[in-house]
Amino acid sequence: MYKAPVEEIAFTLKHVAGMDDAISKGLLGDLSEDLVDAVLSEAGRFATEEVAPLADIGDRQGARLEGGEVRLPDGWRDLYRSWIAGGWNGLTAPEAFGGQALPHMLNVAALEMWNSGSMAFALAPTLTMGAIEAVSTHGSAALKEKYLEKMVSGEWTGTMNLTEPHAGSDLGVLKARAERRADGSYRIFGQKIFITWGEHDAADNIIHLVLARLPDAPAGTRGISLFLVPKFLVNDDGSLGARNDLFCHSLEHKLGIHGSPTCTMIYGDGRFGDEKGAVGWLVGEENKGLACMFTMMNNARLAVGMQGVAIAEAATQKAVAYAKERTQGRAPGWSGPGMSPIVEHPDVARMLLTMKALTQGARAISYACAHAIDMSHRAGDVSRHWQERAALLTPIAKSFSTDAGVDVASLGIQVHGGMGFIEETGAARYLRDARIAPIYEGTNGIQAIDLVTRKLPLSGGEQVKGFIAELKEIAERVRRSNLDGFAETSVRLDAAISDLEAATDWLTKTLADGKAAEALSGATPYQRLFGLVLTGCYLAKGALAESGDGRGAGRIVLCRFAAENLLAETAALRDRVVNGAASLAAARILLA
Amino acid sequence: MYKAPVEEIAFTLKHVAGMDDAISKGLLGDLSEDLVDAVLSEAGRFATEEVAPLADIGDRQGARLEGGEVRLPDGWRDLYRSWIAGGWNGLTAPEAFGGQALPHMLNVAALEMWNSGSMAFALAPTLTMGAIEAVSTHGSAALKEKYLEKMVSGEWTGTMNLTEPHAGSDLGVLKARAERRADGSYRIFGQKIFITWGEHDAADNIIHLVLARLPDAPAGTRGISLFLVPKFLVNDDGSLGARNDLFCHSLEHKLGIHGSPTCTMIYGDGRFGDEKGAVGWLVGEENKGLACMFTMMNNARLAVGMQGVAIAEAATQKAVAYAKERTQGRAPGWSGPGMSPIVEHPDVARMLLTMKALTQGARAISYACAHAIDMSHRAGDVSRHWQERAALLTPIAKSFSTDAGVDVASLGIQVHGGMGFIEETGAARYLRDARIAPIYEGTNGIQAIDLVTRKLPLSGGEQVKGFIAELKEIAERVRRSNLDGFAETSVRLDAAISDLEAATDWLTKTLADGKAAEALSGATPYQRLFGLVLTGCYLAKGALAESGDGRGAGRIVLCRFAAENLLAETAALRDRVVNGAASLAAARILLA
Repeated sequence: MYKAPVEEIAFTLKHVAGMDDAISKGLLGDLSEDLVDAVLSEAGRFATEEVAPLADIGDRQGARLEGGEVRLPDGWRDLYRSWIAGGWNGLTAPEAFGGQALPHMLNVAALEMWNSGSMAFALAPTLTMGAIEAVSTHGSAALKEKYLEKMVSGEWTGTMNLTEPHAGSDLGVLKARAERRADGSYRIFGQKIFITWGEHDAADNIIHLVLARLPDAPAGTRGISLFLVPKFLVNDDGSLGARNDLFCHSLEHKLGIHGSPTCTMIYGDGRFGDEKGAVGWLVGEENKGLACMFTMMNNARLAVGMQGVAIAEAATQKAVAYAKERTQGRAPGWSGPGMSPIVEHPDVARMLLTMKALTQGARAISYACAHAIDMSHRAGDVSRHWQERAALLTPIAKSFSTDAGVDVASLGIQVHGGMGFIEETGAARYLRDARIAPIYEGTNGIQAIDLVTRKLPLSGGEQVKGFIAELKEIAERVRRSNLDGFAETSVRLDAAISDLEAATDWLTKTLADGKAAEALSGATPYQRLFGLVLTGCYLAKGALAESGDGRGAGRIVLCRFAAENLLAETAALRDRVVNGAASLAAARILLA
Repeated sequence: MYKAPVEEIAFTLKHVAGMDDAISKGLLGDLSEDLVDAVLSEAGRFATEEVAPLADIGDRQGARLEGGEVRLPDGWRDLYRSWIAGGWNGLTAPEAFGGQALPHMLNVAALEMWNSGSMAFALAPTLTMGAIEAVSTHGSAALKEKYLEKMVSGEWTGTMNLTEPHAGSDLGVLKARAERRADGSYRIFGQKIFITWGEHDAADNIIHLVLARLPDAPAGTRGISLFLVPKFLVNDDGSLGARNDLFCHSLEHKLGIHGSPTCTMIYGDGRFGDEKGAVGWLVGEENKGLACMFTMMNNARLAVGMQGVAIAEAATQKAVAYAKERTQGRAPGWSGPGMSPIVEHPDVARMLLTMKALTQGARAISYACAHAIDMSHRAGDVSRHWQERAALLTPIAKSFSTDAGVDVASLGIQVHGGMGFIEETGAARYLRDARIAPIYEGTNGIQAIDLVTRKLPLSGGEQVKGFIAELKEIAERVRRSNLDGFAETSVRLDAAISDLEAATDWLTKTLADGKAAEALSGATPYQRLFGLVLTGCYLAKGALAESGDGRGAGRIVLCRFAAENLLAETAALRDRVVNGAASLAAARILLA
């Protein structure tokens, strides 16, 4: 059973991702390390004791559609009620609406724990937090006044309605339409698919944020507007009014996250209300909906990255526990009586250590991204730098972490042997749940396109250069540390960073030369290369931080393992980026 | 929907795996290329038209235990009956018992197609074929006379009963026991788990092969005997007699292969018969059961490898079809109206080509292994050489193909985007089914141990050296071919083969120095390294074979893609083998 790794999370936040630095500079208000520990500890307790025990039943029962209503798995309604009663939904939300305005870093760390407990459950607040952000950033004063307080408390949940059957990654072609009404409201019509927690019985109201097109809108992405469309209309006194003209038509039958209702939503077919059309209100300006949506999507991408970290953590814990307990065969050097625990077999140890390194690397990258987001709001003169850093890190955090989630969950099954394939064991669920994360909120391929075409050019390429220079400093500190066993690590880090630098330069030049197809052929290998280098460097940063007081031996050996066993891949990835495009292009005749 | 790639399979058999050579040397009897084509074509039709259409219902319904009887999914009983009516079960079985005594290569190719159609369904004959082999190799004349004909026809199916809850990979500790009876029979008692197709209603009888221990047996693997234990006792005239004292206690709830009943079998608890104990007959000698089991396990390992190839093929077909049809966004260089098919995006093309290269590589390795097995029975003076070659290739065929099955199926989901996560799409089932293959019949980690500790030392290391020399010749032929675009490929092949050679030498020396733990730390990376090198070389061999008559452009570009985009990984793998053990050993304090 999952146990929240509160100390590891706190260490990574403080000493790897930059929280200690931000606190010491006074950029996080009156946040103290003690408060951080207290929040994490209580979140860890809740995730471990309340959320995780209900994950299996959620998976087995799934969400069910009965007479137009969605029934959550047994116990989930109460779980959600008790979760919001703990105030967890408003951790980072504005104080004006009842939130606690804590740094994003803290929320992301808590999100990791909710997701380790149950990814399907944690999706509800993940979507609500995105909706809160969109409304509080782009909504009118009236909308904020009417909706935010209950969304912040979690009494009402939120959703994002983007996808239509023919419009997934390409939102420019969506067809849902909105009509203006004289009172300033709109009527929304259309069908949306893959709407996470689009309907359920745990909250009194559900606030849908819906992308739709006005009759006179320009074609493509510049003609999309964002609307707030509540399940129940809200009266001026805040009480709930009539049912709005929208409903959940069906639930998807999915590989994983069974407890999370994935809804097809129908807007404006006349099932409810006197006049056809779901009543909605504009968020932001007409035809500027995509910009509003991107506000929530950036944070949502990091939130999805946390799902990868979370599953990787939970899968690793489970596999390590099993490998220590299960005995089979006699490992080389085993001197005990009878069979050895399988953890003694070098091959099993390799799998487990790979799982640990990927998990901790993904966590550090994601927390560093959250730190950059915090700094982009709080760092005054250098906010713009941090905004760019967050933009650069977001696709890596999303893709590397979600790939790690899948890879680690799959290794976890392998460690369990035949038992891993049996659903009751629980290892298989992690793979089933994790598999969606590299897909939604922009596939990892789309993240790679974003990284290469939009993020590398930030500040004329200086943002990524500056970042690489910071990584070189870490490698340099590893060398100067002279720590036992760390010499080879510094060599490996140097080589990996050189690979990153060479690939970055090549991509920058190739894009500048207008060779988009060549550059994009290497986007995915480049993204993974970046993530691996960051994994090595952040593990090193943690090892250096802890080595000062004589502890840290564990961090040093894990960093060594990553440097000497995982980072060799970077040369192959650089090669794919720099040399792979021609043979890929030639082979496309096979796909004609 | 899956369509059996009959031409590709025939090409790989003939021109890559060695069938043309064997036919021209007269080693395959009166087998002609025409007969091969006819058999493959008919198998392909059956797999495409009869098996594949019932895969989804098998997955959805699964096998169900009702009142001690296992009910197969709708239509599966008739499907099995019609499959055996086609004579497919006895393709390689001895003619004396109604088989067709065709080469193993042909059977393996057909197995690929059954598994692409439905892996859960194909497991039934896979197990029966293993049982036929054990009985025909080790059984007494009386046992053969009584059982083989109906097993060869498929009227009776077979099973392998090895695993017990505490004895999976380590059979030495199994507890099932056998008692001698005066009439020469035995009584079997115990519980076996994970018994594939252990109970079902499609065959008149089920012939269980069960490992058990005699009262006076030595401890460990030298005290295990193999018994034939039929579900129904068989009278001397061949008619079915009383129900034997065994039954299916429960079915596992698994991640995939739902249509295949995975049974817990109870022997000898007195539910049936007058005297407690399931009646069984010894196969081979007392306490030599493990050797008998290994006979069937070697071929079973290759059969499991075929599952990986099969899933990879089916998943690739599905993903390519979807990527050509689904439009989204505008790929660089896309000049058509509106959105481009996603296959035009370089990142999607990279995934699809990786899937194709891994699939064809795994197929070639597996067929080459089957060819070696055939030659080990037919090649006269050089049979021993081929026996060793088969032994060397078996762990690679099993592990590389099953890893490819998982990786390709996962990429297939990714290509489908959100639709890939929806069960009705069918892409997710491939991942669920494929995930067991790296585990059963010896985990891929155990295959790697076998490869390094038992196979590299064959003929004092000369077997693997000779094989590497053959691979160098292929690379040399690529260079001399002077084919357009193939120059870089020859360089890449050379480098990859050098990596294999260096890793092989290091492992050989390290084992000779008695450093087992160090060697085994690199066993899994070595195994993958070997598989990747073989993929590159076999793709090249196919390209060279077809280039002569002016065709073959497709094979050349796929080989180039593999050489220039996939083989760069071999340097990292060699590095892990040669340099990775120390940091792995150091990091094991984290698992204490």
